[in-house]
Amino acid sequence: MLKQASIQEKKGTTHYCPDKFHFAWDKTLAPTLTIESGDTVVFEFRDGSDRQIGPGSGVEAILNYDWNRTYPLHGPIYVNGAEPGDTLEIEILDLRTKGWGWTGVIPGFGLLSEEFSEPYLRVFDISNGDYIPFREDIHVPIEPFLGLMGVAPSDSNQTSLAPPDKNGGNMDIRHLTQGARLFLPIEVEGALFSAGDGHAAQGDGEICLTAVECPLYGSLKFTLHKNKSIPSPQFITAPGSLTPRTETKGFFATTGVGPDLMVCAQDAARAMVDHLEKEYGLPRYEAYLLCSLAVDLKISEIVDKPNYIVSAYLPLSIFK
Amino acid sequence: MLKQASIQEKKGTTHYCPDKFHFAWDKTLAPTLTIESGDTVVFEFRDGSDRQIGPGSGVEAILNYDWNRTYPLHGPIYVNGAEPGDTLEIEILDLRTKGWGWTGVIPGFGLLSEEFSEPYLRVFDISNGDYIPFREDIHVPIEPFLGLMGVAPSDSNQTSLAPPDKNGGNMDIRHLTQGARLFLPIEVEGALFSAGDGHAAQGDGEICLTAVECPLYGSLKFTLHKNKSIPSPQFITAPGSLTPRTETKGFFATTGVGPDLMVCAQDAARAMVDHLEKEYGLPRYEAYLLCSLAVDLKISEIVDKPNYIVSAYLPLSIFK
Repeated sequence: MLKQASIQEKKGTTHYCPDKFHFAWDKTLAPTLTIESGDTVVFEFRDGSDRQIGPGSGVEAILNYDWNRTYPLHGPIYVNGAEPGDTLEIEILDLRTKGWGWTGVIPGFGLLSEEFSEPYLRVFDISNGDYIPFREDIHVPIEPFLGLMGVAPSDSNQTSLAPPDKNGGNMDIRHLTQGARLFLPIEVEGALFSAGDGHAAQGDGEICLTAVECPLYGSLKFTLHKNKSIPSPQFITAPGSLTPRTETKGFFATTGVGPDLMVCAQDAARAMVDHLEKEYGLPRYEAYLLCSLAVDLKISEIVDKPNYIVSAYLPLSIFK
Repeated sequence: MLKQASIQEKKGTTHYCPDKFHFAWDKTLAPTLTIESGDTVVFEFRDGSDRQIGPGSGVEAILNYDWNRTYPLHGPIYVNGAEPGDTLEIEILDLRTKGWGWTGVIPGFGLLSEEFSEPYLRVFDISNGDYIPFREDIHVPIEPFLGLMGVAPSDSNQTSLAPPDKNGGNMDIRHLTQGARLFLPIEVEGALFSAGDGHAAQGDGEICLTAVECPLYGSLKFTLHKNKSIPSPQFITAPGSLTPRTETKGFFATTGVGPDLMVCAQDAARAMVDHLEKEYGLPRYEAYLLCSLAVDLKISEIVDKPNYIVSAYLPLSIFK
């Protein structure tokens, strides 16, 4: 009976529930929903693997991984009145995990892909709703966000979703949690917003390539800013600390020092893996995953040429 | 009468007060003080310009700037029993500003050196002891740290202090505030620790090259860790939030997206300068300085090749 792609619940709020996704940026895709500025849309996002990995999966799911099914996106959503040069604001009203999530190593990807070249998978029961039980004595708080929110690029034509760009996309910015507001530069008429790739926890950088990947319930409010132009995504975080759930005990940090920021980041991450292995007895692949879920990469210094410093910050409060 | 370089006040605490500094890394320098593991040393650090810039300076001080006098360091301090391969821990017991500080643009340096090529200087009265009065309605909290702490490199011979390296040095890590503990890999017998370059406030990255540069009173405690080897500096921050004084209102963030992390950082910083200019009416050079004092650079995403994201975070609480 239900032919519409969505259910209009009350004025301005739409429950978006088609079992239909897209897997590329494409400005020619037909919108699945049209909204007005000020509307709220409620989503049920799949995990980034599009259910290739599930609560019962083993490492063979990584071996058989099909990249063509990565990042099942809801959308595109057409925003009435949106034109190139305007800015779309997305307020993250609510995000909720759904009891499980996964993280892993996909060979060929990740900050230390040469050293971590074997497939590896962890699936977590996060039905406690509060933290990732990484190990009995290591609890990473659940802080849900969407890895991917974006608008259609003006030159898109079945363009890969993997790299982020000026249009947003696969940004993996961990502070886009409940209460944050994201601003995206609109490139095509109607904006054509899409989103997906639920994350339950991740550090700045997403070191091993995956966060805790998970399905999410989400509620997003859209506001169109006419004649406000920005060069690339901008955002305002929720009021208060950026790390409200992990800061009580301070942070242990490693550094990478040198002329190449990428190598600096790799050195800092490697030193953190070593530290986690030595101090907490974590196997190396587990240490690498924990870096991706909980460690933040910061540029401590970028002007004392020819050497710069990237630091990796580990919150000590995750250790019980 | 006083011929010693220092005064032994009580067992384990030394007031280090010679009016003598060194301006390069050099493993052949004679130590000015010898201590035991567990000792505390009290310092009076000069500002990084070695008083070339003072409370009454104008921009001509930048024009006449003599790099040979940059980073007047106290030390080297010889730690009894320290050998290459050990680790030196420095606990930051206390750091206090002394009523004034400066920040500026030195042509040829800084993250956006091509766009900000003119000399520029701000000198601040910070005798209130609490914040930098950047503008009547912009208060940047004072959070003192030492820009430069290091041990002599094994290959040093009048080596420049400007770039940091595995031995630490000019690291400009803003979270090495009171209560933090820094770990440095020892490269030569006795460690030969030196420090200087007081900072009253700085964001991660030190975008324009200078923090609020200032003289500091400081008290540091040294602990030698035998047979503990680390690849480059590591540290533990003071317990609690990394941004305890600036987090109440959340952060506004810009991004740089692309394949080169340095360009990403430049793009994020440039977008922040634009934002500060538009939203707060700051002249561009002032906006650039404020980035250096208060904006943190984070690597949001470093694995979604070929594009990465550096974000610049501005604490909203500095605006009154």
